[in-house]
Amino acid sequence: MHILPLSQVYQLIEPGPVVLLTTSHKGHANVMTMSWHMMVDFNPPLIACIVSSGDFSFTALRATKACVIAIPTVDLASKVVAVGNCSGRETDKFAACGLTPLPAAQVAAPLVGECFANLECVVRDTRLVNAYNLFILEVVKAWHDPAQTAPRTIHHHGYGTFQVDGETITLPSRMP
Amino acid sequence: MHILPLSQVYQLIEPGPVVLLTTSHKGHANVMTMSWHMMVDFNPPLIACIVSSGDFSFTALRATKACVIAIPTVDLASKVVAVGNCSGRETDKFAACGLTPLPAAQVAAPLVGECFANLECVVRDTRLVNAYNLFILEVVKAWHDPAQTAPRTIHHHGYGTFQVDGETITLPSRMP
Repeated sequence: MHILPLSQVYQLIEPGPVVLLTTSHKGHANVMTMSWHMMVDFNPPLIACIVSSGDFSFTALRATKACVIAIPTVDLASKVVAVGNCSGRETDKFAACGLTPLPAAQVAAPLVGECFANLECVVRDTRLVNAYNLFILEVVKAWHDPAQTAPRTIHHHGYGTFQVDGETITLPSRMP
Repeated sequence: MHILPLSQVYQLIEPGPVVLLTTSHKGHANVMTMSWHMMVDFNPPLIACIVSSGDFSFTALRATKACVIAIPTVDLASKVVAVGNCSGRETDKFAACGLTPLPAAQVAAPLVGECFANLECVVRDTRLVNAYNLFILEVVKAWHDPAQTAPRTIHHHGYGTFQVDGETITLPSRMP
């Protein structure tokens, strides 16, 4: 994994890919699938996300105030769905789903070795957690795998149906 | 436009498409391009979004507490970029960008006739507006164009580069 400038993080999250969210709590690493997230600010990058209070990861995220957001490509789709279909309450999901936890630099939560990008995050704002399970995260370190040069992400439409990234188009734009 | 059940709205927003956000304030309809949004709850559908305080739409959204989120396909990409490259302060963006405002049912903000889906929204929570320009919206009425049977949306990667929806895959999933 190579370091990615924090100023480029928004280009990964803004397109709305399905991501994995990892936590580490009381010596237990866990991973969940997540599609409800958005950019909040550019630099330092802030990301909002919804982690349901019914998810096992919710307790870990609230207690440790840290996580990693890892972005998988379509090649990992079956593992991503497997992660979403079991709970860390009963399962070591990394082992069960064939994903490799790697040490992060600034948080206890692990990176996901197979993912093309990993974002180490700390919780910055919990004011809307009780109302909506909405966390504001700050990305404190970002990594990308330079070997994955044209990552095709997936976008969830519900019930296991995903749209895969297709063609890329570029139009003259003043928007960052 | 046909009515879309509110319980299906998340399937449109969760994949992270570029959307248009319309407002109507003091008799002036406006439209902006937006990519920083996410689902917050299923039904009634809640959507979080960031509307920068520098955007002309910010004042209208905060004052009227209502908007429409319209979802364009790739065929509208050049109009979507044109909307993002000018300001409603100086321009009637609907006329300038060739988009058709249509009356909504429950809000003063207009639907966008060319878009395959339109979501009428009211602002439900402004607690994080001062800190992050983050609005929580509730979708109160949803519409879709049945003539657009396989809409291909676009996802912004920054500076006018968009990934277009490609192939669809379906995996056995217990996730809604």
